[in-house]
Amino acid sequence: MIVVMRCGATAEETELVKQRLTQAGLGIHESTGEERTILGAIGDVRKLAPETIESWPGVERAIRILEPYKLASRKLKPQPSVVECNGAMIGGPEVVLIAGPCSVENLDMLRLTARAARDAGASMLRGGAFKPRTSPYSFQGLGREGLEMLAEVRSEFNLPVVTEVMAPEQVEMVSEYADMLQIGARNMQNFSLLQEVGRSKKPALLKRGMMSSIDEWLQAAEYILAYGNMQVVLCERGIRTFESYTRNTLDLSAVPAAKKFCHLPVIVDPSHGTGKRDLVIPMAMAAIAAGADGVIVEAHPDPDKALSDGAQSLDLSQLGILSTRLAGIARVLGRTMRNHPGNDPGYQPEAV
Amino acid sequence: MIVVMRCGATAEETELVKQRLTQAGLGIHESTGEERTILGAIGDVRKLAPETIESWPGVERAIRILEPYKLASRKLKPQPSVVECNGAMIGGPEVVLIAGPCSVENLDMLRLTARAARDAGASMLRGGAFKPRTSPYSFQGLGREGLEMLAEVRSEFNLPVVTEVMAPEQVEMVSEYADMLQIGARNMQNFSLLQEVGRSKKPALLKRGMMSSIDEWLQAAEYILAYGNMQVVLCERGIRTFESYTRNTLDLSAVPAAKKFCHLPVIVDPSHGTGKRDLVIPMAMAAIAAGADGVIVEAHPDPDKALSDGAQSLDLSQLGILSTRLAGIARVLGRTMRNHPGNDPGYQPEAV
Amino acid sequence: MIVVMRCGATAEETELVKQRLTQAGLGIHESTGEERTILGAIGDVRKLAPETIESWPGVERAIRILEPYKLASRKLKPQPSVVECNGAMIGGPEVVLIAGPCSVENLDMLRLTARAARDAGASMLRGGAFKPRTSPYSFQGLGREGLEMLAEVRSEFNLPVVTEVMAPEQVEMVSEYADMLQIGARNMQNFSLLQEVGRSKKPALLKRGMMSSIDEWLQAAEYILAYGNMQVVLCERGIRTFESYTRNTLDLSAVPAAKKFCHLPVIVDPSHGTGKRDLVIPMAMAAIAAGADGVIVEAHPDPDKALSDGAQSLDLSQLGILSTRLAGIARVLGRTMRNHPGNDPGYQPEAV
Amino acid sequence: MIVVMRCGATAEETELVKQRLTQAGLGIHESTGEERTILGAIGDVRKLAPETIESWPGVERAIRILEPYKLASRKLKPQPSVVECNGAMIGGPEVVLIAGPCSVENLDMLRLTARAARDAGASMLRGGAFKPRTSPYSFQGLGREGLEMLAEVRSEFNLPVVTEVMAPEQVEMVSEYADMLQIGARNMQNFSLLQEVGRSKKPALLKRGMMSSIDEWLQAAEYILAYGNMQVVLCERGIRTFESYTRNTLDLSAVPAAKKFCHLPVIVDPSHGTGKRDLVIPMAMAAIAAGADGVIVEAHPDPDKALSDGAQSLDLSQLGILSTRLAGIARVLGRTMRNHPGNDPGYQPEAV
Repeated sequence: MIVVMRCGATAEETELVKQRLTQAGLGIHESTGEERTILGAIGDVRKLAPETIESWPGVERAIRILEPYKLASRKLKPQPSVVECNGAMIGGPEVVLIAGPCSVENLDMLRLTARAARDAGASMLRGGAFKPRTSPYSFQGLGREGLEMLAEVRSEFNLPVVTEVMAPEQVEMVSEYADMLQIGARNMQNFSLLQEVGRSKKPALLKRGMMSSIDEWLQAAEYILAYGNMQVVLCERGIRTFESYTRNTLDLSAVPAAKKFCHLPVIVDPSHGTGKRDLVIPMAMAAIAAGADGVIVEAHPDPDKALSDGAQSLDLSQLGILSTRLAGIARVLGRTMRNHPGNDPGYQPEAV
Repeated sequence: MIVVMRCGATAEETELVKQRLTQAGLGIHESTGEERTILGAIGDVRKLAPETIESWPGVERAIRILEPYKLASRKLKPQPSVVECNGAMIGGPEVVLIAGPCSVENLDMLRLTARAARDAGASMLRGGAFKPRTSPYSFQGLGREGLEMLAEVRSEFNLPVVTEVMAPEQVEMVSEYADMLQIGARNMQNFSLLQEVGRSKKPALLKRGMMSSIDEWLQAAEYILAYGNMQVVLCERGIRTFESYTRNTLDLSAVPAAKKFCHLPVIVDPSHGTGKRDLVIPMAMAAIAAGADGVIVEAHPDPDKALSDGAQSLDLSQLGILSTRLAGIARVLGRTMRNHPGNDPGYQPEAV
Repeated sequence: MIVVMRCGATAEETELVKQRLTQAGLGIHESTGEERTILGAIGDVRKLAPETIESWPGVERAIRILEPYKLASRKLKPQPSVVECNGAMIGGPEVVLIAGPCSVENLDMLRLTARAARDAGASMLRGGAFKPRTSPYSFQGLGREGLEMLAEVRSEFNLPVVTEVMAPEQVEMVSEYADMLQIGARNMQNFSLLQEVGRSKKPALLKRGMMSSIDEWLQAAEYILAYGNMQVVLCERGIRTFESYTRNTLDLSAVPAAKKFCHLPVIVDPSHGTGKRDLVIPMAMAAIAAGADGVIVEAHPDPDKALSDGAQSLDLSQLGILSTRLAGIARVLGRTMRNHPGNDPGYQPEAV
Repeated sequence: MIVVMRCGATAEETELVKQRLTQAGLGIHESTGEERTILGAIGDVRKLAPETIESWPGVERAIRILEPYKLASRKLKPQPSVVECNGAMIGGPEVVLIAGPCSVENLDMLRLTARAARDAGASMLRGGAFKPRTSPYSFQGLGREGLEMLAEVRSEFNLPVVTEVMAPEQVEMVSEYADMLQIGARNMQNFSLLQEVGRSKKPALLKRGMMSSIDEWLQAAEYILAYGNMQVVLCERGIRTFESYTRNTLDLSAVPAAKKFCHLPVIVDPSHGTGKRDLVIPMAMAAIAAGADGVIVEAHPDPDKALSDGAQSLDLSQLGILSTRLAGIARVLGRTMRNHPGNDPGYQPEAV
């Protein structure tokens, strides 16, 4: 922490600041210039907010130098982490595709979608059994019945499953069925839930909150890591801005930025990030080009009849097109994608 | 729901849209103009998102006409609701002041703050025992011990207590001690928590999420109402914008806007809304002038030593100044404030 | 400027940074701690962006300490400035009301509005002759003809006039007719226009850009001051955020914030700030309560027929109500408002 | 325009609305349901804002159906436009790279940069002679002298030049030297400038305002088209959001969205869009993957000594790497890039 005293701050004010920093257990390095004094506070400053110090008499600015996270930091672990999820490897040389319906609606649609996903080279199946919905009158998911369907389809197609967990008390039950626990954007700062997922042994998919800075996102990851679970994958899914044409504004710059500071894998959700079916494929390609380790997309056998998020779901035939495009981008970056007929390097693309 | 077909939509496309609306249980009113067809869908359209309909072939736009909430709406209950909280009345002619520390730190500081709050004309005491913190390494609150201190001080000063509840499984315990359950901004769309508070009998204080529209805020209130708890007070506390000088951007226009659509009382939190101690009093005055039913502010006997939010906490002497100012504004609006020596109508203010 | 070197920065890197700062004409104060080196750069650092320094090898952070404006700063001129505009005094003890139509449409409507404004205690008349419009097909204002109408009505009712100037080459012509030059929100960073208004002798009303930080707003004012015109009034008129119910989000916290750093008067435009007629009066009251020196509102004899901004214009009878409310708030702050029958201190308000 | 009357609107209210629409020259199509009446207004509704109609008695909602632009619309011209700029073709099958310094500083640095740009396969040279700067004390560009340098280097390297024009009265002079006129983000709604560029014969590069919706951006383009200049290229360069790690949030979804509604070419500026040198190449790749017709980037022989925007400028060796990466992405989309040694299809990329 660097504390810059005002020009004209009195010796008493400076002394008081030093006392308070000392009381907080910090070492102090003082530097007195002609115009002003600057204090460096050394030690664990994570408990002391710069805003608090700035409200002390005589203080002009307080600036945190250290990142507020530790276990998530590249400084602690310079090499990128690979998260293994029942056979799927996220963060390695292979770019991953995770696909599936927004909500699990019934076994038939889930099976159809899973087969198409697998055939398109997907590594994992997504599907919601517990759905966070803005209105209490919207479809809230099938609950445990949905989890059972996911588990059944998982065995049939050999696809590990990721599904959302909405409350601490659901973690145990969802863990029985799922291979990866998703924490949704609205719950990114549900700290009770982060702690409970941190105590679990399942890999976690942490969506970025739609109002959360990159810094807060990495601190939310730090919660899970600090409670003992090192298997965390970050997911950019759009932030809320003034632009209302898209459902959210997909912040792809956050991908290389997060990967610079943090060793965890980063994937992108272009379905929620745009809310528009015809933007999903271009933005998925852009995500991989920006360095993402994979994408998670919504797909549905008949999107127009979906009980939720139909407007942003791909139909099953689009999954193959998506996969082929992603494989092309992956090659430019020296990465690979899972086998899919169209992913042959000799494949000739038509103009988009 | 109004569904506007594209110019040149085919008869088949229009027919298909009508079939799907009918399957969703809706009545249809068709209007065919020279250029295009417009369909009115009548019935409970809350389950069908406009975005989904807009992805159907031939559809140009779908517009929801009905508000997505019902129990919270002024249409259902034109008269403003008054929420009674162990003696404090929120939403009536009296403007309420709720004050207290960000976190309960110990019994002494809580007692000092409560006495100053009561003397300044506060109706309720605030104080956090469970604290949502961005970093896992920050002070997380005293938990049950903090609740016990709140209960003790409540009896001593006869001030009802509002405190935050962070997870569904805490609702029962917190209800033993508190008179009002606060749902924090980060939990505004923690639907499991909303449901549990809806099932409880305690009045609820629902903070607006920092990324939430007015419409989503009222739908979050609808969750609590729909689960059986009609005692909800809304609290505007700032939204996240590009402006970084203030911690958030206090959206005071949301006060008259929410009160126009919804019968529930609305109060304002200028402490979190600005993050700066010297902006709290002017923005509290502005809140009452905009029509708020009260304010909730952070106060601390020694803000510079506060374990959290010191930069935005008033010191105890400022509570009296705040109260006097608010009483002046209240009078302009034909409202009252609780007795406080400075709140005498004959009081002569100095220039701010 | 404080330059914080990384832990482990080499001596060569530090040396290079020092050389570059020296080349930029800055004095250097070095402070070497156990873990890292901190450099204080002394002199005129306004030309060197912190971002540039942060891209130098070995640099962790660069932080500007000085405010980027000088003439606008309270440090240069601690006393608040009062801007005199042909008899109207903005920034003194009197709270000012500026009212008038969005666009000048014809002489009749302008005369009707001006009379009502004067009777309601307005100090100045507003009205647009040149209108910035999002679409090239919208009404663009009457131009010089509108200016002539403004001048005629000004003499008749003895109300100084403020009107918008949209391009440098219009400054001379508009100055012939107007008492104050308005720079609109979309032009807040039209630097050619700021310079030309800076060279003029007319007082300027500088609206905050809808995407501009407080800091950038004060730097835009600095442009006008630096080119020789010290008569600048700031106007908060709403920023763009994700909330779409209101046309913009009126950022009233910017009022006390701007007045803290800057000696110029600050007024508020609740008409553009909300875009909704029924929010104008509550938000105008809130603005004065937050410390604004006045408000500027749109009014029209028949708002529903207005050629622009009808939805946010008050009708003429509402001007008197507004004035009475503002006078009440002004008194709480120890300020005054111009005579208006309802502004009598003995006046008994009904509940809002 | 669709006008939805409230449930319970009176016959008089409906009649009045119909009269006003008729007076505005619109035909009316009425549809009366059991619960409410819906009016379709037919004709040129561009002059009547929905907000105005919504303020009329009895009106619940007014919704514009037509896009507010005409000449820019895909409906008028379904085929994509190609803008020719002195030999460079923007919007065709070839992806274009435009590179150069933020500001022209001197002839040497400009020549060095231009050579590197040409060698990397750039189609055009960028460089600022007139610079919009937030502070009046920052370097404002070399003005005409800078234009002369640009013209000299253009002939030497046979690279057409794009440079910014900041005010209507500069259009003529800048047109003497430049091949394309850039309208900067801060001037996107400087309507006097848009009109003057519309009257010129030079191709225009229209940057998206940092607070502008896609819809407003296309309307700004419509200004230029409506004044007679059909040679417009759109440029996404980041919008302002709460995220402060990047200078702006690059909104790549706007690329496919703008191309869907509008026939004009769209390029992307990842330098201003991110403000960080190490994000420029990944985000440029992402831009092409999302469907952009090219990128415009800042480059400098010694970025750390740049007078402006050094932190986001590539050094010259990075231009070749960028070009090779872009060529790879272009191929995936069935597009091409100008010759550059590394752009050989047989080139083996290393991992990023």
